Amino acid sequence: MEYYSGQISKLIEELSSLPGIGSKTAQRLAFHILNMPGERVEELAGALVNARKNICYCKECYTLTDQEICPICKNDRREHETIMVVETPRDLAAYEKTGKYEGVYHVLHGAISPMLGIGPNDIKLKELIRRLEGDVKEVIIATNSSLEGETTAMYISKLIKPTGVKVTRIASGVPVGGDLECIDEVTLLRALEGRVEL
Amino acid sequence: MEYYSGQISKLIEELSSLPGIGSKTAQRLAFHILNMPGERVEELAGALVNARKNICYCKECYTLTDQEICPICKNDRREHETIMVVETPRDLAAYEKTGKYEGVYHVLHGAISPMLGIGPNDIKLKELIRRLEGDVKEVIIATNSSLEGETTAMYISKLIKPTGVKVTRIASGVPVGGDLECIDEVTLLRALEGRVEL
Repeated sequence: MEYYSGQISKLIEELSSLPGIGSKTAQRLAFHILNMPGERVEELAGALVNARKNICYCKECYTLTDQEICPICKNDRREHETIMVVETPRDLAAYEKTGKYEGVYHVLHGAISPMLGIGPNDIKLKELIRRLEGDVKEVIIATNSSLEGETTAMYISKLIKPTGVKVTRIASGVPVGGDLECIDEVTLLRALEGRVEL
Repeated sequence: MEYYSGQISKLIEELSSLPGIGSKTAQRLAFHILNMPGERVEELAGALVNARKNICYCKECYTLTDQEICPICKNDRREHETIMVVETPRDLAAYEKTGKYEGVYHVLHGAISPMLGIGPNDIKLKELIRRLEGDVKEVIIATNSSLEGETTAMYISKLIKPTGVKVTRIASGVPVGGDLECIDEVTLLRALEGRVEL
């Protein structure tokens, strides 16, 4: 690229290595950054480096945090006997945004996927089983509704059931506001199977 | 945001301040960055800071570069008597990608916009006029085809014409591969007005 000088090319290249950032977006971002005040750029760069450097797994729920125990696990007002199992910290955040879930979480960091060679030992499953030795009443499995997520849910439920702990799965069905005619057959069947009495 | 710890929130906040990055994309990027090897993150952060720190205007064409004179202006094989006037370094790059333009450029860093309070003195116009004192045969105005771009083109042509230097404007019309029925009326009229004999 003769048309951008070395450091601009380098910046564009670095930015376009991020997921979902193509070369056009990378260019737009790069020139935005070049026009930002110097101290704002240092702040942005600092946030990147610091977050990466200080981040670790919460010792209880294995979400990413910058403390030993994450704020949710530390919170005494939450019901520690209810554990919601999610695939990623972003799924945790999605449920936290509802503001209605009072229990705690367990982050698997992935799902079982024979296709990708990810087995039960590659996700934080042993860690979940270890938590069941404590006082746990219910495990709510909130893995994605994908093939991998469903496989993982089945696997976990089979693993936990013998221990006597209640295992539930979040409902699948028609999304609220969803238009029936736009929804795939599998979801429609699931919604039918999971119908509840009014 | 209780659901992300301080440094992750900070990272997401910083990322979502960038143009075109909403909160969902910022979250996705943040967790991608947290999963990147530490040295890759430092490299990315370094690229941001270095590019911002070492960037300046080319003393001739005013594009952003990390050298005193940009590689294009430095290149003796280019026709220095032909200057293409563009609004931004990205527009320059767009024409460079065609690989066919042999002249040099002049980057205005904006366009005249009474709406936004940007006048002729807020863009690199004086600097363009100063370049005309040298040996310049043609000025090609390649500002955007927007209201501001057209205003700027008119203003520049009026300014330059008395000096006797040839002033041209890139053609506007139907984009190559464009479907006539999808194109707005103004463009269709422009294409008609600008018709050429075959």
